[in-house]
Amino acid sequence: MTTLELIEEHRCFGGQQRRYRHVSGELDCPMWVGVFLPPAALAGGGATPTPVPTLWWLSGLTCTDENFVQKAGAQRLAADLGLAIVTPDTSPRGGAVPDDPAGAWDFGHGAGFYVDATQEPWARHYRMHAYVTGELPALLEAELPLDPARRGISGHSMGGHGALVAALRHPGHYRSVSALAPIAHPTACPWGRKALGHFLGNDEEHWAEWDTCRLLQAGRKLRGPRGETLPLLVDQGEADPFLAEQLRATDLEATCAAAGQPLTLRRQSGYDHSYFFVTSFIDDHLRHHAAALAG
Amino acid sequence: MTTLELIEEHRCFGGQQRRYRHVSGELDCPMWVGVFLPPAALAGGGATPTPVPTLWWLSGLTCTDENFVQKAGAQRLAADLGLAIVTPDTSPRGGAVPDDPAGAWDFGHGAGFYVDATQEPWARHYRMHAYVTGELPALLEAELPLDPARRGISGHSMGGHGALVAALRHPGHYRSVSALAPIAHPTACPWGRKALGHFLGNDEEHWAEWDTCRLLQAGRKLRGPRGETLPLLVDQGEADPFLAEQLRATDLEATCAAAGQPLTLRRQSGYDHSYFFVTSFIDDHLRHHAAALAG
Repeated sequence: MTTLELIEEHRCFGGQQRRYRHVSGELDCPMWVGVFLPPAALAGGGATPTPVPTLWWLSGLTCTDENFVQKAGAQRLAADLGLAIVTPDTSPRGGAVPDDPAGAWDFGHGAGFYVDATQEPWARHYRMHAYVTGELPALLEAELPLDPARRGISGHSMGGHGALVAALRHPGHYRSVSALAPIAHPTACPWGRKALGHFLGNDEEHWAEWDTCRLLQAGRKLRGPRGETLPLLVDQGEADPFLAEQLRATDLEATCAAAGQPLTLRRQSGYDHSYFFVTSFIDDHLRHHAAALAG
Repeated sequence: MTTLELIEEHRCFGGQQRRYRHVSGELDCPMWVGVFLPPAALAGGGATPTPVPTLWWLSGLTCTDENFVQKAGAQRLAADLGLAIVTPDTSPRGGAVPDDPAGAWDFGHGAGFYVDATQEPWARHYRMHAYVTGELPALLEAELPLDPARRGISGHSMGGHGALVAALRHPGHYRSVSALAPIAHPTACPWGRKALGHFLGNDEEHWAEWDTCRLLQAGRKLRGPRGETLPLLVDQGEADPFLAEQLRATDLEATCAAAGQPLTLRRQSGYDHSYFFVTSFIDDHLRHHAAALAG
């Protein structure tokens, strides 16, 4: 029986920023996850909590469940909008979980790339896609006032990739999608090719299911519960040092246009890849999700 | 000649979050300091920058110059208000700077308590009061568009203590003062007694000049450039585990009342001592300062 253990709880903007620990079956290790509950979710004193819409936020390379919680400044507006925010870790962790052989930061611990690995020694633990789209929502929505019918998903960098792939592969699971500086075409960039090669093996045909551009090219679109096409909001800093080689927003733009996937790509002059970029635009993303998840 | 070396610069809410390094004469070591410049300070392309009002933020125990910058979420509103924010480190640092003999976190590196030490081995480096009230404003206001006539000061915990003492000891230097969960009566709490004993020696008469309550009892008030009394805004979480023993807001309240120092003390139900508390109320403090520093 998987259960949630409350590790930390802080009053924040009238809501609660919590941190939970649980043992993941998909990942076969203990995991930590952040949950921000807005005041609306706490009304009724917890006895009859009100299920609220939830933004699932997937973080980028080297992050834990805590980076977004501490650095994005999202709780202020989320409290006002009545939006919960779930912030999973970015990989399985612990001494039993294999890491990058050379200790690199772009693969392994802190760098699970939100795929389900098929290759050893990774396949036993590295199932971040199944974890964030299946096991974790089932667990959290059973135990907390998070409305399963009103999920949005977003993320930054590797987490933007994870969010887009999750939404493309699970039509109807989310009602709103966005990303900040996503790794939009991982089969065509060094970070992605390294990770997909390790996790999925050398046959690149198996990589296509884990690549936003390739999924769009294969006919997938972002779809809501009634089959409706969901608009995609993406912010991208123009001074981001990873833009051309790793993130490839131009590929995303061209692929969405060819596939008929509605995209609002905002190129933000002077912004880099840091959380100073994320915090500058997170409010627009929160509003994008809250509007789609209302009612 | 002391000069500023730009270490990092990030576009943030249309302004710039910068990090500088410089060698401090007062502290006899290299120091790092954060500066947020709002868009208003960048108008004119830097050739003819517009001096803007500045909030001096002093951080608490264990913090560096980066905690507030990354966790407080202050840049959003500061950008709108046209307010710069300067975030010094909390102590001198480096291998040449003596630290707590037992390696404790509540004294020494990360815990300079914003006093000017008189005792060895501390006196050579631990001159944080002189640094944040004298050397650093002179340096930053000479090199950056920060208006020396429009300074506010605030801080959290040990930094709240530092801000209040700085303002009480330097009438006219600041035009606005506030604090979050300040160590309000350091001569009467364990953190303060340990630090003041090390830095100033065992004669407690020398401690009184570095204690908000004692300064108020001795007739000091918060005074602006025209000698006017400045109102003090303080937020304090009621679930703060350090409240009764270390922070002593009740002492501050009683002392301000007896001394005729205007105080708005807001006791915030359910809030603890963390940055989740700081971020929840920082906007009110920014507005308090911006209103006083306008024009």
